[in-house]
This record gives sequence, C-alpha cells and structure tokens, in this order.
Amino acid sequence: MKGLLVIAHGSRRQASNDEVRQLTSRIADKAGEQFDIVESAFLELAEPSIPDGIKKCVEKGAKEIIVLPYFLSAGRHVSEDIPGEVDLTRSHYPDVDIQIAPYLGAIDKITDLMVEHAIDATNV
Amino acid sequence: MKGLLVIAHGSRRQASNDEVRQLTSRIADKAGEQFDIVESAFLELAEPSIPDGIKKCVEKGAKEIIVLPYFLSAGRHVSEDIPGEVDLTRSHYPDVDIQIAPYLGAIDKITDLMVEHAIDATNV
Repeated sequence: MKGLLVIAHGSRRQASNDEVRQLTSRIADKAGEQFDIVESAFLELAEPSIPDGIKKCVEKGAKEIIVLPYFLSAGRHVSEDIPGEVDLTRSHYPDVDIQIAPYLGAIDKITDLMVEHAIDATNV
Repeated sequence: MKGLLVIAHGSRRQASNDEVRQLTSRIADKAGEQFDIVESAFLELAEPSIPDGIKKCVEKGAKEIIVLPYFLSAGRHVSEDIPGEVDLTRSHYPDVDIQIAPYLGAIDKITDLMVEHAIDATNV
C-alpha cells in the first residue's frame, strides 16, 4: 500500500489548516489509483504532527510513503526541519519506505499552472 | 500591453526572494505570447514593493495588469494586505486595468500537479 503525506507549515488561523485538509481530500479523490492512503500533517501549530501523520499512514497499512512538502520556498523548514522530523520517525518503521519529494515550489510545471491561471484571470 | 505581476510574501532569506525572481523569469519565458511584461514584487522584507512593481509594469507600457499572489493560503495577506496595496496604487494609474487573480493555493489544478509530482517521486 502506498501513502501520500502532504506536509504544510500549520497556522494559528484554523481556516488555513482546514484549507490544507480540504486540499488533501481533493488529492485523495484524484490519486485513488496511485495512492491508497492520502493524509496531511503539520510542521507546527496544528495537528497531526509529522510523526503522527506518518504513524497514521503506517497504521492504515502503508509500506511506502511519499512526503510532499506543501511549501513554496526552500527555507530551513524544507531543508532541515521536515527531513529532521521524518528521519526521527523513520527509525520506528524499518519496514516502511519513506521518501521526501521535492517541495511544491520546486515543481517545474508550477510555472505552466501560473501562466494558465493568469490567462484565465484576464478573461474574467 | 499586458503585464503579469507575481506577488510573494518576501523573506529575510535572500535565496527565497531570488527563488521568486527566478520563477518569474521562467514564467516570462513561457508567457511571452500572453503577457508582454512579467515582473515580481514583495509584500514585505524584499524589493520591489507592490506599488513599485505595479509602477514598473506601467512604465514598461502595461495597460492591463494581472496581479497573481504566490501564496498558499487565504490569510490576511491575501484577503486584505495585497488588495489594500493594489487599491492604493490603482488610483495613480486610472488608465490601467489592474486585477487581482485568485492566489496560487486556490487554483483547482494544483491538486493535479501535486498528484503527478508525487507519482514521479515514487518512481525515482
């Protein structure tokens, strides 16, 4: 079973955390064939934490987990904090393959999405 | 002439601001047929400011400007601060049509991008 864990920063503003949860649920609807389990977790200020998010995926049966940082820039959170949390957790599940995908802002195709979106906005 | 202005939050970490500038330059390469002018600006902590970014587009000849907030959640920055800055600037350029597109995190297709990206990550 494959799991996808979307990691967001987390916010004091609950609506922002809910926005991530809703996004994750839309991803789950679309990714059904590729990922059996799709969850979200937060680096700070919201629940579940990254270790709890990984635990959730494992308890649901994931043997392979892709961690996807929902971040736009390669700051300390992306380069150190998220890998650090994942590494701590990884040792608890030696049979589970946990990999961190490049963060959202690093996806080359994000530019295509933005161009399309800007064109749509000119036509409103 | 049409302009596209990508607005990021801005960071004390210069590499994050440069990342936005590089993204903007990649967008400019792709959007040439649709947007004659593509610039970036920052809400805080980096230059140019939003008013300066709009001014830059106008000075280059933009008669229509799409402002695209490079933000993932609909917090105060997206709902109040960016529209506030744009409104202040708009009155200086009565002949220029300035519109704010929905922020990046609100683009429905971002989920497709994330699913594709996660699938790519499983195949590395």
